Amino acid sequence: MSFRFTKRIQNTPKSFIREILKVTQDPSITSFAGGLPNPNLFPIEALQDAARETLATAGARALQYSTTEGYAELRAWIASRYSRHGVTVDPDQVLITTGSQQCLDLLGKLFIEKDDEVILERPSYLGTIQAFTMFEPKFVTVDLEEDGPDLNQVESLLATGRPKLFYAVPNFQNPSGLTYSKAKREALGKLLHKYPETVFIEDDPYGELRFTGEHHKPLFAYTGGRSIMLGSFSKITVPGFRLGWMVAPPEIIRLAVKAKQAADLHSSTFNQFVIAEYLKKHSIDDHIAKITACYGSQAAAMVRTLEREAPEGVTFTRPEGGMFSWVTLPEGKGSCMDLFNLAIEQKVAFVPGMPFYTDGTGQNTLRLNFSNASEQVIDDGITRLCRCMKDFLNAS
Amino acid sequence: MSFRFTKRIQNTPKSFIREILKVTQDPSITSFAGGLPNPNLFPIEALQDAARETLATAGARALQYSTTEGYAELRAWIASRYSRHGVTVDPDQVLITTGSQQCLDLLGKLFIEKDDEVILERPSYLGTIQAFTMFEPKFVTVDLEEDGPDLNQVESLLATGRPKLFYAVPNFQNPSGLTYSKAKREALGKLLHKYPETVFIEDDPYGELRFTGEHHKPLFAYTGGRSIMLGSFSKITVPGFRLGWMVAPPEIIRLAVKAKQAADLHSSTFNQFVIAEYLKKHSIDDHIAKITACYGSQAAAMVRTLEREAPEGVTFTRPEGGMFSWVTLPEGKGSCMDLFNLAIEQKVAFVPGMPFYTDGTGQNTLRLNFSNASEQVIDDGITRLCRCMKDFLNAS
Repeated sequence: MSFRFTKRIQNTPKSFIREILKVTQDPSITSFAGGLPNPNLFPIEALQDAARETLATAGARALQYSTTEGYAELRAWIASRYSRHGVTVDPDQVLITTGSQQCLDLLGKLFIEKDDEVILERPSYLGTIQAFTMFEPKFVTVDLEEDGPDLNQVESLLATGRPKLFYAVPNFQNPSGLTYSKAKREALGKLLHKYPETVFIEDDPYGELRFTGEHHKPLFAYTGGRSIMLGSFSKITVPGFRLGWMVAPPEIIRLAVKAKQAADLHSSTFNQFVIAEYLKKHSIDDHIAKITACYGSQAAAMVRTLEREAPEGVTFTRPEGGMFSWVTLPEGKGSCMDLFNLAIEQKVAFVPGMPFYTDGTGQNTLRLNFSNASEQVIDDGITRLCRCMKDFLNAS
Repeated sequence: MSFRFTKRIQNTPKSFIREILKVTQDPSITSFAGGLPNPNLFPIEALQDAARETLATAGARALQYSTTEGYAELRAWIASRYSRHGVTVDPDQVLITTGSQQCLDLLGKLFIEKDDEVILERPSYLGTIQAFTMFEPKFVTVDLEEDGPDLNQVESLLATGRPKLFYAVPNFQNPSGLTYSKAKREALGKLLHKYPETVFIEDDPYGELRFTGEHHKPLFAYTGGRSIMLGSFSKITVPGFRLGWMVAPPEIIRLAVKAKQAADLHSSTFNQFVIAEYLKKHSIDDHIAKITACYGSQAAAMVRTLEREAPEGVTFTRPEGGMFSWVTLPEGKGSCMDLFNLAIEQKVAFVPGMPFYTDGTGQNTLRLNFSNASEQVIDDGITRLCRCMKDFLNAS
């Protein structure tokens, strides 16, 4: 006999991206499919030193059970990091999590009852769709424009559905690469004040990775701190430590701690100590400058090649930071799933856009990652991909 | 205005134990409250070497994103470890998790719909009560006898309520220290065959820590592999790496992987590599022998002192392994919460038993941890605690 599984787990989409990653293990394939930071930039020696120092000085304390809230020194570092935006965060408002992905699970547990409305961007981060689906919400979406969400749509949703949450990635969004402008941030902040029942979640794994233009203040600055910020060490140090964080009003942190106790007691003590030690000894700004210099050149190579090679009618975003560009093909020409199969034959991979939509649309879109390939590889791979696009568009 | 939180998070109990740990940070207090492994036994130097070796050889690969299922080498080690019981486990049946606590969250997501029946032992592990409560089950319980669960109660529950899950800790249970006998395992295995709709979860963080008597086969051996085993590196290496695992039929693992993707993508790559490297270079059996020699002496000291000092009518378990003894006071003499307050005045701490019950009973019980104090400290602290018990019993 088979097992009696819950509806929630049966309805949760499997990560198509993680499935694609299996296909792209083939080293002959040029993959723009992943979302991997460039491993050549990992501060391996510095982490080696930090690990040694941690075990030499903190010893067993770094290997024992610890508090759910997280290592005090690391919470303080995170809180103080927001001062670069002129935003004041108390260390008690910071919860260390097992990657920022865990925040999505915890927030689902805190806020989403079956059939509650949750606003997502269109398209939206796949990991959030997965994590929230587990709690059976009703997703509603707002279109993303070049400078942020369509605010008429936002207000209409806030006014009618009493949504519990509005989840967004305002900087260099995954998958679209788009960023909210200052004007949209101000206007959205006002809307959120007007409809305080809806809690805004600002997921920001990429904000530090700006290689051109000016940094913007987080939405948190426009909501008077009555919203939630998520952050991650994955893109500014290494992802393999699985360390992220949530910043939220104390009332939310208190319950998130309870949810985290039940989920994994606490995040790795050792990894928290090692990262804290690393941050004490090294300038994160210098390290981030190295990353953005590299990703900036790679993004430029991608945009340059797309400008040169993309067939007529194909558009793409020109990201000012982050790790992704987003390509839109003319509508009605078939599904990018078919383009994916063509491209794999030509040894190039990307992520078809549909999984980032909750409404079954997005067939004519795809996501390209530029952080994990050299300029030469990008030029060559994107050229081949554009040839596949031509064949695909001509065939249909 | 306040936030609109879910019922599930408001109903989830906060860990009383973790709250107590805050009280017992006071170094003048002798604490038998925690569930901490003895940090003097942590293999700090060996882990230091393993961390260095990992970064020198695997380098960036140990710091990058990796598969949700876990590091293949570590999955293979875990699978092969079960051969000591003559049990065959395929590495594909192993999912690496962020502590074994995470397994409880994942299994809740896979199996528990609101109001589904779940069988727990009485008393039961608090972390499971917390993790499962999040999915709003109806808990039903079976009494624990010296040699395992009351099988009449088990059969009655299996026959009438179609419980989704039966969660148990058959070796050196937390909190009671009790272990299922071979006879009870056989009989329970038969019952589980007879009622295949109920999935048995065998949580076994302490099974390796047997300091006297014979090891028993896991229930998994009696269910023909149609049940779930949970395991942990926390008690046999270090808890601060947050690494545990689930062994289950492939159909369950497949969905658990989907739930884990949504929960935290994967567990720390680095920690998995370091533990795998450590296990390659060192005999875990030698290390476990050191731990059990130490815990065996500490348990003996606790039992000896309780035998000498405990007031008449007070009973306690004599564990053959693990980390806990369980004390039962005469009924109707008041709550161990009051005893707790008396004991704190005398600078001794323990965990009152009530949080381990889902039915509000257990007021006359308490849990003592012996793994984290020397024999001298145990003798002295338990003597003082027994004096508090006398005062408490005389006063009521």
